[in-house]
Formats: sequence, structure tokens, C-alpha cells
Amino acid sequence: MKVKLNNKTENYRTVWFEPDSGIIKMIHQNKLPHKFEITELKNHTETANAIKTIIVRGAPAIGVTAGFGIAQSCMEAPETEFKKYLIDAAELLKSTRPTAFDLFYVIDRLLNKIKDSNSIDNKVRAAEIAVSESQKIADENAAACKKIGEFGNELIRNNDKILTHCNAGALGCVDWGTALSPMRIAKYSGKEIFVFVDETRPRFQGAKLTAWELLNEEIDHRIIADNASGHFMQKGEVDLCIVGTDRTTACGDVANKIGTYEKAVLAYENDIPFYVAAPLSTIDFNIQNGSEIPIEERSEDEVLVVNGKRIAPVGSHALNPAFDVTPAKYVTGIITEVGVFKPGEIKNLKSAMP
Amino acid sequence: MKVKLNNKTENYRTVWFEPDSGIIKMIHQNKLPHKFEITELKNHTETANAIKTIIVRGAPAIGVTAGFGIAQSCMEAPETEFKKYLIDAAELLKSTRPTAFDLFYVIDRLLNKIKDSNSIDNKVRAAEIAVSESQKIADENAAACKKIGEFGNELIRNNDKILTHCNAGALGCVDWGTALSPMRIAKYSGKEIFVFVDETRPRFQGAKLTAWELLNEEIDHRIIADNASGHFMQKGEVDLCIVGTDRTTACGDVANKIGTYEKAVLAYENDIPFYVAAPLSTIDFNIQNGSEIPIEERSEDEVLVVNGKRIAPVGSHALNPAFDVTPAKYVTGIITEVGVFKPGEIKNLKSAMP
Repeated sequence: MKVKLNNKTENYRTVWFEPDSGIIKMIHQNKLPHKFEITELKNHTETANAIKTIIVRGAPAIGVTAGFGIAQSCMEAPETEFKKYLIDAAELLKSTRPTAFDLFYVIDRLLNKIKDSNSIDNKVRAAEIAVSESQKIADENAAACKKIGEFGNELIRNNDKILTHCNAGALGCVDWGTALSPMRIAKYSGKEIFVFVDETRPRFQGAKLTAWELLNEEIDHRIIADNASGHFMQKGEVDLCIVGTDRTTACGDVANKIGTYEKAVLAYENDIPFYVAAPLSTIDFNIQNGSEIPIEERSEDEVLVVNGKRIAPVGSHALNPAFDVTPAKYVTGIITEVGVFKPGEIKNLKSAMP
Repeated sequence: MKVKLNNKTENYRTVWFEPDSGIIKMIHQNKLPHKFEITELKNHTETANAIKTIIVRGAPAIGVTAGFGIAQSCMEAPETEFKKYLIDAAELLKSTRPTAFDLFYVIDRLLNKIKDSNSIDNKVRAAEIAVSESQKIADENAAACKKIGEFGNELIRNNDKILTHCNAGALGCVDWGTALSPMRIAKYSGKEIFVFVDETRPRFQGAKLTAWELLNEEIDHRIIADNASGHFMQKGEVDLCIVGTDRTTACGDVANKIGTYEKAVLAYENDIPFYVAAPLSTIDFNIQNGSEIPIEERSEDEVLVVNGKRIAPVGSHALNPAFDVTPAKYVTGIITEVGVFKPGEIKNLKSAMP
């Protein structure tokens, strides 16, 4: 992704792995948008902690990071009891966040790859496989996101006003983004677009991260309170919505950042197309119905305290579900790296899985 | 309203007028919930400024405050050119906020009362009328809100979970509140209720003011991000919604705090009754269609900066409409001081106006 630093533009991935040192490097997302900093994670415990404390977030980015964490665990494991060390590391990494499907998809893919090559007791061979496969997953994700951008771009007309929620940008992936990738490609292909950026309470990923990415890309945008998106839809100012997804079911229900369901219902009510950008790695073919997706409940302090200062009166408490489920009924189409599909067509994509 | 101070409970109105000194006293709402302070406004210019800077807010409270401001202007006016002074004061007070109808209703009611008694050139007589009528309006509002509570309470069953947006509480009125009045009366009548409090970005009136009122009343509640209300509705956890209104049209369209339209559409989609608590003073019989209601656009800094610290990257801008319009279609009923009506019945209420 483009990052403007001291008046020059550089290209960064959200997260990458340096196999010689076993260090994962990533953009420290809790410090954005005011400070751009690369943080280093020396072992899989630090990596699990970075996922848990949201230094890295976004379903695809979490998945790729966890994959690198598995590679770290193989490299740092003792020779004896290697298998136990690896399985424990996988459990720790899986326990960091419950909703994003990529996390489970990537970890299981790596473990299966190691098992299938009969290397589960062979540290050196397992590490080679984990390093190579996790790098491959990262590259696949970047390529998938670029393809999502190309397919999604075909849905965007010149001068369209697009609403997005949360950050399904390059920062939530390895590069390009999911929901923001079509906007990047639209911009590169010469279209004029305008983006309504939902600020996305309680963590402000829209105001902090999506706005930062759009600024770097010089894409015209305005931040709005989450409360205002319905108003702009009602006034006819929104041409289409594009959001990301943390987990998509076989029948096309979509778990994504809290508030996504609200935007989808409002788009439906106002006859505005509502697209979900979803790499295949977010699709959980084992779940039919969105109500089966586990929804993370996060600390009430994310709601009650902003910028270190309490908003609410002492004595009041908050509920803080981090995700909601948008039923397939409200989803116009799902933009994947192999094309744009109706929610009902998702179940047919299993054969396309990498 | 009940206010707990140093372990004892006292009763306060949001705003009151002391005619001997010409001073308006009010709860300083920008300092809540962390500090309870009564502020004093010595003349109508200070009063206009208090409305503009949201020391007092909420349509009925704005109206009553403006009425007291008119009384101040009569008292402080010079003998010569009294009429011009009064008209200028009315214009200044009307210019503070564009959406709340009570503001215009109260000021015009006072001016008409003064004109009808042929006192528009008689400072002493006009001041007497303005003081007495503005006090009457404040008392009427408190009584109307209590009646709204009684009618609204009939819609609430024991153990109901109620969702509300923004603060349509005693703080938005003189006492009791509009949307919160039925909850107070339900509590006093022995019902157990639970309230989902939308935090209400960008100004957090829900998290700051509604939560504070509910704490003082010992009504069980949780604050939620505005993004989460749809999620709880979808999960069947919300039995009914009650909100306030800044202006209601003759056909039952409702202008209220930004985000109200979103909640109304989500309630409609989830078959949840959506009630609007509206003193008759909020009804603008001159407007049929909600799209004719002027919507206040407020400073982008309310979105971009929280607790004195910028959220968004420097270079990004925000749009900040303060209100939206909920079409009558989404409104189950309008709770007034003379009963609960379908939106289509509102036009028949003109004769009930005080």
C-alpha cells in the first residue's frame, strides 16, 4: 500500500516475515493515524499478543500473521516434544480472536500441510514447510485482494459515492485490502470516486485507519458518525456500499464489524447495492447459518473510555459485541478473487479454495 | 428530576428563571456526567449563547430557555425603541439552533401574547406578560412530560427491554423528559425495566446524559455503541424503542438526533414497536413532509476530535448533520400529553395546542 512519509510515497505490506531472523514485522495499527511505526515480533507468543491487542487486525491480516506465528513456533521449538510445542502454539494463536475465520483457516492449513508431509515430528522439515507455506499464504492473500479490486472495480461507475464501514483496507490484509481494493483500482483506472467513511465506534477503525489509507491514496472522502450513514443513504447520496467480512457462511451470511448489519438493512431499505468483499479464506463452509458464528464480546472500556478519558458516568456499564451478522438477504453480491457472486452461490465455491 | 449529590437525592429542574434578578439558572450539560454545576445566565445574549453552545439542549428545554430569554430581553430593554430591542432579541434567540421546533413555537407564542395585549410598545407590561407566560410554558412542559410518562408507561410491560437514542430525558426538557418519562413512571409504578442506551455519537448524549439520568433513577441500563443497536434488535433482545423528537410534521414525520432514522428502520425490519415521545410544542403543523425540516450541520470537529484529542488523520474531513428525518412509515405511535396517536392522526391535534 502507498504510505506517504516525509513527502515521499513508499510501498508497504501490513505484515511480513523475515525467516533468517524469525522476526515478524508489521505496521503498528494502534499508533495510526498519528504515528507510522513498524513493530517487531520475536516469537509466536509476542505474535499472539499482537493479534490479541489489535496491533494487527482485520480477518485476512490476522490469518497471515498467525501463519507467520506458526512458522516462528516451528523455528523456536525445542527438538524434543516438538509436536506438543507446535500444537500448543497453534492453540495459543487460535485463542486470540474468536470471529475471524482466516485465523483458523490458515493455522489448520499449515498444520495439515506439515502432517500431510509426515513432518509433525521433524522440526527442521516442519519449519521449512511452515515458512514457505505461510509466505505463500501472504502472497496469495495479496494477489487475491488485487483480484477482488479488479472484480469490484467493475461495479463502480465514474463519480460514484461509496459507503464503507470499519477498515477492510490494506491494513486489514497484507496489501490492497478487501473493500478498499476496488476503490484503489477505480482510482488507478482514472475514475473519480467519493467515499463516506463510517467512523466505526467503538474503536474508530474507519476514522483512524480507512481515512488514513484513503488520504495516502488521495481518494476524496469524508468521515461520518455511524449514526449518519442512514441519513446520507436516505438522501440519495450513496450509490453503493462495500464492506469486508470476518467470516462468511456457506449460505452467504456475513459476520463483520459491529454496525455492518445496520448499514446493510439501511441499504436494502433504500435500494442501494450492498457488496461484501471476501477473500475465499474468510468463507467457513462448515457453517450454514450466521447465527452459528461466535461473536467476540470485548471490554466495556472500549465504549466507556475514549482517548484515555471516561465518557460515561461512573456506575454505568456497557455491552460491547465486536461483530454482528448480516443475513444473506441484505447482501447484493460477494466480491471474491474468483468473481462476484450472489450469496446463494457461495456454497459452490468450495472447489476454488487454495 | 432526581439528582444524587453527596449521597442524598435532591430534585432539580433543568432550567428555571428567577424574575426578581432576571437570572436564568440551568444545569450545565456540557459538564455532565462528571460534574454537576448550575450555571447562571444574566441576560438574553448569554442565554442565546448557552443554547448555541449546548449548555442546554433538547427541543423542549431549548424552547423553555428561549422563552425565559425573551422575558430577560423585556426586562433589560431600554424604554425607547423597546419593540426593536425585543424583535432583535427574538431573532438572536431563533438563530441559535435551526431544527428544534419548540424554539420557534415558544418565541412566537410570547411575541403574539405581547402583541395581542397591545403591549409591544410597553416595556413594563410586556415584561410582566413575558415573565408570566414563559413560567407558564415551563410549567406546562413539565406537566406535559409527566402526562407523556403516564401514557407511555401503558405501553411498557414488566421486564421490558427498551432501547433509546440520544437524551430525550429530563435534561432535554424542564423535568421528567419525553422518551425517559415513561421509563421513570414505569419504575415508580414498580415495573422492572432494562434500557439499552445508544451512546449517540458524535456528542455522546446517550452515554453522558441518558446514562446519568438512569443512574440517578436507579434504572438498570447498559450503554452500547450506536453500531450495536441493530445487533440487539436482531437477537430479539429489544422489546420496544422510545425516542424523542425535535420537530414533528403534520403527517407524523419526525426530525430527531442523527441516527434515529437508522434505529427506526431497524426496529421496523425486526417488528419492534418504535415510539416517539412528543410534547405538542414539538409539532410543526405548517410542515407536511419531513424533507422540509431544516437540518443543522454542525462543526466537523465534533466527529474528528474526542476528549480534546484528534481521532482522524490530519487532512481528513468530516460531515456532521446533527439530525435526521424518520418518515411516519417507521413510527408505531407518537406519545403526547393528550394520548398516544398513530402518525396519521397528528394533523387532528392542532385544536389541542395550548
